[in-house]
Amino acid sequence: MSTQPSSGFRAEYACSEGCGFRASLWEVIYRCPKCGSLLEVAHDLEALRSVPAAEWKRRFESRFGSARLPNASGVWGKHEWVCPELPVEDIVSLGEGRVPLMPLRRMASELGLASLELKECGVSPTGSFKDWGMTVLVSAVKHLRARGVPIRAVACASTGDTSAALSAYAAAAGIPSVVFLPKDKVSLAQLVQPIANGAKVLSLDTDFDGCMKLVQQVTEDRGLYLANSMNSLRIEGQKVVAMELCQDLDWEPPDWVVIPGGNLGNASALGKGFQMLKAMGLISRLPRIAVAQAQRANPLFRAFRGGFQELLPMKAEKTLASAIQIGNPVSFRRAVRTLQAFDGVVEEATESELANAAARADREGTFTCPHTGVALAAVEKLVAQGVIAKGSRVAVVSTAHGLKFADFKVGYHRGTLADVESRRANPPVELPAELGAVRKALESLG
Amino acid sequence: MSTQPSSGFRAEYACSEGCGFRASLWEVIYRCPKCGSLLEVAHDLEALRSVPAAEWKRRFESRFGSARLPNASGVWGKHEWVCPELPVEDIVSLGEGRVPLMPLRRMASELGLASLELKECGVSPTGSFKDWGMTVLVSAVKHLRARGVPIRAVACASTGDTSAALSAYAAAAGIPSVVFLPKDKVSLAQLVQPIANGAKVLSLDTDFDGCMKLVQQVTEDRGLYLANSMNSLRIEGQKVVAMELCQDLDWEPPDWVVIPGGNLGNASALGKGFQMLKAMGLISRLPRIAVAQAQRANPLFRAFRGGFQELLPMKAEKTLASAIQIGNPVSFRRAVRTLQAFDGVVEEATESELANAAARADREGTFTCPHTGVALAAVEKLVAQGVIAKGSRVAVVSTAHGLKFADFKVGYHRGTLADVESRRANPPVELPAELGAVRKALESLG
Repeated sequence: MSTQPSSGFRAEYACSEGCGFRASLWEVIYRCPKCGSLLEVAHDLEALRSVPAAEWKRRFESRFGSARLPNASGVWGKHEWVCPELPVEDIVSLGEGRVPLMPLRRMASELGLASLELKECGVSPTGSFKDWGMTVLVSAVKHLRARGVPIRAVACASTGDTSAALSAYAAAAGIPSVVFLPKDKVSLAQLVQPIANGAKVLSLDTDFDGCMKLVQQVTEDRGLYLANSMNSLRIEGQKVVAMELCQDLDWEPPDWVVIPGGNLGNASALGKGFQMLKAMGLISRLPRIAVAQAQRANPLFRAFRGGFQELLPMKAEKTLASAIQIGNPVSFRRAVRTLQAFDGVVEEATESELANAAARADREGTFTCPHTGVALAAVEKLVAQGVIAKGSRVAVVSTAHGLKFADFKVGYHRGTLADVESRRANPPVELPAELGAVRKALESLG
Repeated sequence: MSTQPSSGFRAEYACSEGCGFRASLWEVIYRCPKCGSLLEVAHDLEALRSVPAAEWKRRFESRFGSARLPNASGVWGKHEWVCPELPVEDIVSLGEGRVPLMPLRRMASELGLASLELKECGVSPTGSFKDWGMTVLVSAVKHLRARGVPIRAVACASTGDTSAALSAYAAAAGIPSVVFLPKDKVSLAQLVQPIANGAKVLSLDTDFDGCMKLVQQVTEDRGLYLANSMNSLRIEGQKVVAMELCQDLDWEPPDWVVIPGGNLGNASALGKGFQMLKAMGLISRLPRIAVAQAQRANPLFRAFRGGFQELLPMKAEKTLASAIQIGNPVSFRRAVRTLQAFDGVVEEATESELANAAARADREGTFTCPHTGVALAAVEKLVAQGVIAKGSRVAVVSTAHGLKFADFKVGYHRGTLADVESRRANPPVELPAELGAVRKALESLG
């Protein structure tokens, strides 16, 4: 097995605010030590351009057929663009990426769109888009350990998809993982993936901020590697969603891409993927990007309405879209730059809007999570406002499988969700067990 | 778009017991009208052989890269082998198939196996392997309707993966679906996928047998198409699991394939896939097959112990492996023929064995369903017995995503499952929110 699949291609850390700091990807570092900003992974585009765009397209297509790493993974089939110097033998993959692009034909037709398609990132090993980024982070940690860096474990403070993905990839790699959580704030059901995958789950007598503070203190000694959302390695995997979406569409980007936004790393990753494709000549124009937020956790929406003058951190209220219930997003500045570069907009959705939009899509055979519901509600509203023009081609990033949110679905169809008017509830029909009654009930079908 | 992607290739219904009955696939028919046996789909292998084996391999690999139907689907990328005369425009796909083959390296090593790999059929649009067969059935119904056959809806009596897959594919096709269920026996949570996908769910004042009887009566008029497990079109999609598994392994089949068995259609489908590959020269030998049953629903295991003299239908008891809680499997005879052709065996697993085997695999980063736990427990037992020899290459068909069985996982790690000793429970650790206490708790890591 080749250990250097991509010799000549290079990437390194750079300060995302442009202060000039650079460092090797094999440094254990999370923020710019000069100015405190987030880091980003900077690729040597000149080296990548030594391969013509048409040849990259050919390679990306042909690699989907392979059963061996790196190509067996949708993310690592784009190895040179993701983390080129990572040796193949250190890749930790669960077969992430290469997910369906599902057309919602009736909804598109009703809205007057040329197309409306869901990039189903939740049809994935741990059930969410976090897999795309976590495969890169955990692979890098495996490589750091192979280089002798004494990392004993990976750690995060998360109740949701991040801890599920981290613990699954760590388990596959044989690297211990630790999840920090506030005691009594989280149920075992929310944690069952990390628990099953063998993470050490610490239930701490404090709140979430207290957990974050502790995880940062404990990871300062570099023996514990911090896997939270400021980690810029994860962005490199997540940006492949944009690459794969363009590949699905024969390298003709949609007019709009709509994505739910909480901490906003995902929106930045999407932008980075499209920009890299354009810089490399694989696409000739950028789509517009719309970030969709829950009305109860909408700091980016508020900032957008104010012309992005400033972010006013808010206390996010409880929303069905629990994974984006964030009042002070860590990737705010990155996301603003992305929106400015993509002529982007921000929209918000109420609880009722997000739940009904999710139910509308489900009627076409998908099983959407509430966050995808936020994005679909934003599509409905932006079309109604004329911001998304009739006839547009629209893609929505579906971030998790609805199976992770069965209670949300049950509550919707029972009509018991707070502040939600279930306009598409579809309760069972009770009938006597008689052929005549059944036949009569079925008369209205089709 | 081509409407005849595979001209010259043909398939038709044939009586599975060899009475000689043949019929067009575009007849609405579920059993042999001459002898009452199940039907099977018979392919024109001579026509398929007009393409050399090496060329089929090349085609199957290259098609994985495509974003357009039929090739965007792992099942329909093998269109000519599945349902060759179905026009491309009638394919109803959610992007099924093309799922990860996940190595369980530590478990393989501990058991002394050369390899142990999970074919992750639950990393799928509706979360189970049923998608592979349902795409074929619903596509055929769409085509029948296009030919003028007056089918108003598709119907089944199922609480589980079958109704979820049927309703999702029917929703995508815009074809009404109906699910027949006994009132008060099933919770809304079990039904939330069909409910969300817009199926008409009839809650009937009877038991399961009463529902089956009614669904068969109602589907007799051919206006309602019966999608239950005797439908042999589904087998054609499910057999692609065997084809894809061989493709993953560079056309070198494993020594053993282990699969959970309830109604036994899946075991038969697997056998059919391997046999067709061998007949066509894409593989040179067959694997051995082990069917794994829950001890509480083990009629095939009992028959196997008796030399397959006869099937004694039993009353299946309640088991965690709820989808295979079947006492009188409809595909018994097909499965026995498969086991005889593949030098096969049958093993059983207790509740405790299946739950602990599932937890063991989870520690490597997967999230297994209880049925996959049954298959993994069978591997452990067959290795211990020497039936599966040390050094063997073993593949297990993982039939659903564990996210469909979160309660099973929570119960296991809480230690509250009846008749299960949770030997790998991993409960959270409660700690004060102090750096010293946290550091101390992490000392044992790595």
